[in-house]
Amino acid sequence: MSDCLFCKIAAGELPSKKVYEDEYVYAFEDINPVTPIHILFIPKEHISGASEITSENSAVVSKIYEAIAKVAKEKGLDKSGFRVVSNCGADAGQTVFHLHFHLLGGTKLNWP
Amino acid sequence: MSDCLFCKIAAGELPSKKVYEDEYVYAFEDINPVTPIHILFIPKEHISGASEITSENSAVVSKIYEAIAKVAKEKGLDKSGFRVVSNCGADAGQTVFHLHFHLLGGTKLNWP
Repeated sequence: MSDCLFCKIAAGELPSKKVYEDEYVYAFEDINPVTPIHILFIPKEHISGASEITSENSAVVSKIYEAIAKVAKEKGLDKSGFRVVSNCGADAGQTVFHLHFHLLGGTKLNWP
Repeated sequence: MSDCLFCKIAAGELPSKKVYEDEYVYAFEDINPVTPIHILFIPKEHISGASEITSENSAVVSKIYEAIAKVAKEKGLDKSGFRVVSNCGADAGQTVFHLHFHLLGGTKLNWP
């Protein structure tokens, strides 16, 4: 996806503060953090959002959650707690149409 | 996990309003909905929370996101938008220590 911001970030064509990377997953600091720790996890392969996950492309979601658990432990969030959020479409305010998961932590989070 | 509320729900030992079920995943209506559509997706296998996801047990997370995408389409949320949230630990207010994913939709969602 030549015009996708997150494809470019995952490919190193645009700068980001990298937190984690493996063969399938890239993670970087959100440029507009809403919590003290706010990291975005994305698949390197382009998937536009959570509504487009199928048995064909879903394997990367497991890899992303493995990476989230690893990074959460590195940051001590496994002790304090954290939230993982994926926004899809207009009602959720999705602004970049490349599947991404927010790891939010470092503070008490409200519900809902 | 004999004392786990969500293990009992997945096994049919406690009542729930079932929305979806397959070999690995069970989904049911949240009893305290915070949005017009509020469905919980859980693995049938007990995992205490997102911090405990590893390469050994992560495959079910992909299955859960496949199920979420299917249910979102059935409910028309692929058009309007939706949010998927997993809370882990104290800071996120996790109350049931069996991994679960909230599918939230049917209204405009605030961020954060």
